[in-house]
Amino acid sequence: METQPTDREEPVTLTSAELVERWSGLEEPEELAAAFHRLEREESDEFFLALTAHEQAALLQALPRGERRLWIRLLAPDDAADVLQKVEAPELREELLGLLDEATRREVKALLAYAEDAAGGLMSPLFARVRPESTADEAIRYLRRQAEGDLETVSYGYVLDAEQRLVGVVSLRQLITTRGDRKVQDLMTSDVVSVREDTDQEDVARVFAQHHLMAIPVLDGEGRLKGIITADDIVDVVEEEATEDIQKLGGMEALDAPYLRTPLLRMVQKRAGWLSALFLGEMLTATAMARYEDEIARAVVLALFVPLIISSGGNSGSQATTLVIRAMALGELRPVDLLRVLRREVLSGLLLGCTLGVIGFARIMIWQALFHTYGEHATRVAITVAVSLVGVVLFGTLAGSLLPFLLRKLRFDPASASAPFVATLVDVSGLVIYFSVADLVLRGTML
Amino acid sequence: METQPTDREEPVTLTSAELVERWSGLEEPEELAAAFHRLEREESDEFFLALTAHEQAALLQALPRGERRLWIRLLAPDDAADVLQKVEAPELREELLGLLDEATRREVKALLAYAEDAAGGLMSPLFARVRPESTADEAIRYLRRQAEGDLETVSYGYVLDAEQRLVGVVSLRQLITTRGDRKVQDLMTSDVVSVREDTDQEDVARVFAQHHLMAIPVLDGEGRLKGIITADDIVDVVEEEATEDIQKLGGMEALDAPYLRTPLLRMVQKRAGWLSALFLGEMLTATAMARYEDEIARAVVLALFVPLIISSGGNSGSQATTLVIRAMALGELRPVDLLRVLRREVLSGLLLGCTLGVIGFARIMIWQALFHTYGEHATRVAITVAVSLVGVVLFGTLAGSLLPFLLRKLRFDPASASAPFVATLVDVSGLVIYFSVADLVLRGTML
Repeated sequence: METQPTDREEPVTLTSAELVERWSGLEEPEELAAAFHRLEREESDEFFLALTAHEQAALLQALPRGERRLWIRLLAPDDAADVLQKVEAPELREELLGLLDEATRREVKALLAYAEDAAGGLMSPLFARVRPESTADEAIRYLRRQAEGDLETVSYGYVLDAEQRLVGVVSLRQLITTRGDRKVQDLMTSDVVSVREDTDQEDVARVFAQHHLMAIPVLDGEGRLKGIITADDIVDVVEEEATEDIQKLGGMEALDAPYLRTPLLRMVQKRAGWLSALFLGEMLTATAMARYEDEIARAVVLALFVPLIISSGGNSGSQATTLVIRAMALGELRPVDLLRVLRREVLSGLLLGCTLGVIGFARIMIWQALFHTYGEHATRVAITVAVSLVGVVLFGTLAGSLLPFLLRKLRFDPASASAPFVATLVDVSGLVIYFSVADLVLRGTML
Repeated sequence: METQPTDREEPVTLTSAELVERWSGLEEPEELAAAFHRLEREESDEFFLALTAHEQAALLQALPRGERRLWIRLLAPDDAADVLQKVEAPELREELLGLLDEATRREVKALLAYAEDAAGGLMSPLFARVRPESTADEAIRYLRRQAEGDLETVSYGYVLDAEQRLVGVVSLRQLITTRGDRKVQDLMTSDVVSVREDTDQEDVARVFAQHHLMAIPVLDGEGRLKGIITADDIVDVVEEEATEDIQKLGGMEALDAPYLRTPLLRMVQKRAGWLSALFLGEMLTATAMARYEDEIARAVVLALFVPLIISSGGNSGSQATTLVIRAMALGELRPVDLLRVLRREVLSGLLLGCTLGVIGFARIMIWQALFHTYGEHATRVAITVAVSLVGVVLFGTLAGSLLPFLLRKLRFDPASASAPFVATLVDVSGLVIYFSVADLVLRGTML
């Protein structure tokens, strides 16, 4: 019996574009499977391939067992390995591995042995090999045969010796533009930029950016070629690394999945840890303030500027730490640059502190002239605020720029919560600076 | 006369690796030129090509006029255009343009007409063309001839009709693995992913990441092929966009150049603008505090918790705004997702606020039991702090997640100083929340 679509019902099939539009709104496994089943058949494979590894894993998990083989087998070995790394349940991971054909399963297992964020975990084991003693014509014929398989790219042929060691690279372009009888070993570039299996993916990305390469070979400790990484995979890596750093700079643990895909409690957990740690740190401000309780009682006007002073320190510290951490991540700053950074930041801190000091002084004097807000000692209050601002901003700038160097020296990740950590450090020190300056400037008058 | 190197003198020539090591430490034009001249001659071109466009521009500027032609002509048109965009002095830009050969100059000028961060400004005008009615063998011969020129890639042939409109793409792999007499139009993929000349580079990067492409064609409004963008160029774009967003989230204008390459005063300028703006905003905290001056005078203990309360609001707001802005930049969140974000953040804010509220309450009660720090009304003070924390964290979380949506709606860049702007907004509102709660809880006892 046919069902007639009525006004109230949704259309039975969806186009790929319509499904993309809805996909991020779906949360439950049943919703994912049902929506995917409504996709027009000829568009399903392209849609599946365009999903992120994380989304593919979620969808595979949501589909009935009988349908999984078709989709996992659609993936190249390196992509299948990525998906398996996103599957959390070990039983499901084993089941999916079992659905692959023998040869792919071996390759995927080999890839899974690498850390997800190392070159070995990124590479594809499918690359085009040629022999140094072949002629250009033989090499083209040989590449053509390999290209019928499932190579990621045939733009380059990798020249291996008998021990599978990489001795050079020859581009398809070099092969087709030369005389057919020339030897590969006379054509190839033997000075090849490569990375090791255990090279961190951030460093791999830097090598790509520096040399403008389309593909890079991955070697083991003995110089044997294990796989290649292509530039399109590096685009994802760079996005992912930047996202992690940004989230850490925002004062939380990096999420494992896109914002809307992260379960609420998991997200709260990632945020609550650092938020509580920072809160415990900020409690020191209450302790510091308690030390100055008498001063506040005698000159309540001092309390009015506390938020202004500490937030200025926090903002300038956050600027400095962000600059330094990003420059470190991009490889622009190394440990030896500490002194140069220090010199720049002392000057910047002084200039920025003086700027805020002048604005702060003017603000208090103007309000005093207009509304007589700050009592008879307004000028001294203004001096206290201005001098404190210079000190607090200078301290914030220095703490913000030096802390990442210190964290790295101690082998911590500088990006982890550095910015809010600096803010907390600067808040407490800012209070001490402010009340010490007040003590000097106001003793004998207000205090 | 020959100079004998002595112990005190530096070696006369440097290897490429040695120069890379020193390069970031050089600041003055004379230092750059002198160091570059000490590089071994056969390594100079590779070294020059590995520099960023910004570094190439600085070096060209530093070299004597007579040497500039050699180096600017080494660059492909798209790279030359990038370098010219980094040159600030219009005279020097004109001079360098004049050093190019006629054909390249025309191409570079065409590229310079595009915005630096649009697809047109990224693309290379050098791509391999084929005709739909050619056979595979003819196409290979034709590609081979073009490959002798200076194409960025010959992995793909772009199939153009008589009006230069893109009708399909054929890979070299497809051409070499098929029968030689098959027509290109029967082999080619006609459903080609492409971008427009004016597509923003962030969107171009997203298309690459989504479709895992090695190259993407750039079309004008009439569908004519103007150039191609390759994945290796996109790696740079993604790094650059992430750096800009990170610097903006850190509360400053994005720098135009690497940290150590940015002149000190320029950097201070980029930081001082936002820092002053935020300072002016934070002055509202002094105004807000002044409204509660009487309350503080009567219950000085209230002032002790001001930094703790407002920094907690700031930290939770910064978490939320960082998450939302990064998800927006990655295309994970669209305006229609506002309600879903709101629902998630209300719940997150309440959970996080209660976590801090419980910790804060416990802290005050424990200190009170141990040191009797907070006087006879300590329990009421603890309740005030705990309830305020829930309110402030919830408000911070909501403000932090909604502000980016609002900024985008108003066509501002959500990343621009959102995080510290949220902190400022939350500081002022946090004070109002805190003192209002205090008013309710403490009226009749301490107030």
